[in-house]
Amino acid sequence: MKTLWSQRYAQRIQRMKGSAIRELLKFTEEPDVISFAGGMPAPEVFPIEKTKEACIKVLKEKGAQSLQYSTTDGYVPLREMIARHSARYGIEVTAKNILITSGSQQALDLLGKIFINPGDHILVESPTYLGALQAWNAYQAEFIPVPFDKNGMVTDVLKKRLRASAKFIYVLPNFQNPTGVTLSYERRLQLIELADKYGVPIIEDDPYGQLRYEGENLPAIIVLDSQTRTQKACYSGNVIYLSTFSKILAPGIRLAWVIAPLEIIQKLILAKQGADLHTATFNQFVAYEIGRGGFIDEHVKLIRRVYRERRDVMLNALQKYMPEDVHWTHPQGGLFLWVTLPEFIDSSELLTEALKMKVAFVPGKPFFTQGEGKSSMRLNFSNATPEKINDGIGRLAKVIKKCIATTRNK
Amino acid sequence: MKTLWSQRYAQRIQRMKGSAIRELLKFTEEPDVISFAGGMPAPEVFPIEKTKEACIKVLKEKGAQSLQYSTTDGYVPLREMIARHSARYGIEVTAKNILITSGSQQALDLLGKIFINPGDHILVESPTYLGALQAWNAYQAEFIPVPFDKNGMVTDVLKKRLRASAKFIYVLPNFQNPTGVTLSYERRLQLIELADKYGVPIIEDDPYGQLRYEGENLPAIIVLDSQTRTQKACYSGNVIYLSTFSKILAPGIRLAWVIAPLEIIQKLILAKQGADLHTATFNQFVAYEIGRGGFIDEHVKLIRRVYRERRDVMLNALQKYMPEDVHWTHPQGGLFLWVTLPEFIDSSELLTEALKMKVAFVPGKPFFTQGEGKSSMRLNFSNATPEKINDGIGRLAKVIKKCIATTRNK
Repeated sequence: MKTLWSQRYAQRIQRMKGSAIRELLKFTEEPDVISFAGGMPAPEVFPIEKTKEACIKVLKEKGAQSLQYSTTDGYVPLREMIARHSARYGIEVTAKNILITSGSQQALDLLGKIFINPGDHILVESPTYLGALQAWNAYQAEFIPVPFDKNGMVTDVLKKRLRASAKFIYVLPNFQNPTGVTLSYERRLQLIELADKYGVPIIEDDPYGQLRYEGENLPAIIVLDSQTRTQKACYSGNVIYLSTFSKILAPGIRLAWVIAPLEIIQKLILAKQGADLHTATFNQFVAYEIGRGGFIDEHVKLIRRVYRERRDVMLNALQKYMPEDVHWTHPQGGLFLWVTLPEFIDSSELLTEALKMKVAFVPGKPFFTQGEGKSSMRLNFSNATPEKINDGIGRLAKVIKKCIATTRNK
Repeated sequence: MKTLWSQRYAQRIQRMKGSAIRELLKFTEEPDVISFAGGMPAPEVFPIEKTKEACIKVLKEKGAQSLQYSTTDGYVPLREMIARHSARYGIEVTAKNILITSGSQQALDLLGKIFINPGDHILVESPTYLGALQAWNAYQAEFIPVPFDKNGMVTDVLKKRLRASAKFIYVLPNFQNPTGVTLSYERRLQLIELADKYGVPIIEDDPYGQLRYEGENLPAIIVLDSQTRTQKACYSGNVIYLSTFSKILAPGIRLAWVIAPLEIIQKLILAKQGADLHTATFNQFVAYEIGRGGFIDEHVKLIRRVYRERRDVMLNALQKYMPEDVHWTHPQGGLFLWVTLPEFIDSSELLTEALKMKVAFVPGKPFFTQGEGKSSMRLNFSNATPEKINDGIGRLAKVIKKCIATTRNK
């Protein structure tokens, strides 16, 4: 239907693209599809009973307050809880440095809103989280991709691509979405050194940091930067840090947070006032009620156990079923791994075949900014049960083998 | 703290201003302040017990699904429920024309994102809802104010200010925020005629339409426009309509909706993907559970009863306590009324004095785009109890009388 609106779109809309992942969510709703698409937690680990108790308690004790409008910065006890939690990982900030957002996606949008002018250069890992590309495309950012290897962003190339005029560097150091790769300790230090040399700040996106299944925790970039710059490791303010309750509680409550210097929190509050007034009061009260007795620490142990098993099942299935010339990453945590196919395979075309076999994944292309990634795919291992993972990887391997055979016979 | 970020803000941030209302929310938290600021529903009418039952039922029957990621457009049963509800008011649309948003504020933001280029002209009532000004300032809109009288936007002046190049006209036809004024039937028709003549579409913001305490419901602009343009009154698409659960259930769950042509819903979905992925799944499930048995209709009757009484108490108290030369509107519904003071009084200065007397309101200025409104104020009558309303208006009258006396003695 053509309306008076049709000729009236803003220019920025030409940069706004739909997400292949979100489209694929439709397929995941069909019960016979085994989906490695999406980034969904296992429904089996949602703390349903605990959430119910928290809802009842909040409505009984703070019913009216929890259903009322509230301040844009967020519920103070929740922010204090996050500050205490962060301190355990060496992030020394107060509740005033913390803004509650409606999921991490909103944090990305608000950061785009306050920082990005059309044409601004943003350095990103290549591939990177496509939600960040989506959010910042709307502000007409120009992305400068930095290649990626098994130790994360290649800092030697970052050195060549970094200019003082760049707006910021965006990194997901732990079990990166989409690759599952972790930025090594050495590279973290090099990143900080380069950022310091050129005077370019960093956004550190860390949704999965708590979900490590092997190896030792690496210090966050926000921590390393502060240690480098200040005697007492107090917050330097040059790194903005994002994290979320989506992976450690549940994504359906849309709760995340930003850690930033006070000056930036104030600008983000301005932006958030205009964007959604505030994050749902009720959800903040419920999350605080769930978390305040130390429940989340125990719960994360359960999540780690479940996801470690699923990762291992997927790695074993890949080993067992995949043909030669198919390679994949070995993530030490998180929700994803990354598969590289022979160059002649287009993973978007492969997806059509895979869906006929009732198995889904996300093709690699949308995670890149310059059209690369044709022969790669992201697999999620958190959502499906071990049995389905094994079955699904078997199906996927068949589709790939068939595709290889067809090409060779041409 | 100056950081690497301090020199890096986007240009648009210069247009982003804080909201006096949101700042004032801080005072409303002090228990001894009687606040007519804010636009908060009465906590006494929140359906706490019903919400508790709904939370328990949702978590019991759809626990995992309600805590999981979901699609950007929103929970289909909730959208279907809204479509049925809308049909009763003559708005003939399907669930596909409805997008769930994280409060109406998000709808305003997303509409700004997809439609507003820097410098675009938007016609607004003067005064108008300041949240819209906040949202669209971030997209560097230019506002063209249209004066307002007791029948709403003065369409004779709209005629002079309207150009085909304007992006859209923004109106709050029912019990407008901030004035409480309702756009008359005749003016509605004139508005549609003018919009049609110049080919400029309309955004109709209707958060309070259900809350009428006297007089007859007037047809929505979206309905009148469709009746004018199409034989069968099917949706013409030229009016985008916004409404919300904030005033008929509770604002702390952040749930609202947009009605728009399918083409625009798809663009809004793109924008929303980048902005917050989707609105909280759990909240949508709970709202559907609360609403599906017809509860909301009954509940709205309660809200109307409570708010009508509070409005009447406020009108009586104004009549009783206010000095001559103070005037106010007589809203037929909604949450607000508008007070006009003698010209020599600056309501921002008055607020400082009022706060000393533990009574709060919102000064008129932020609702205007060109610095007008110095001697006016918005009063909310939904939030305080009748007793406090009477007491608070008494205090406010004292402050005003004192201010008048001081000025005369100078």
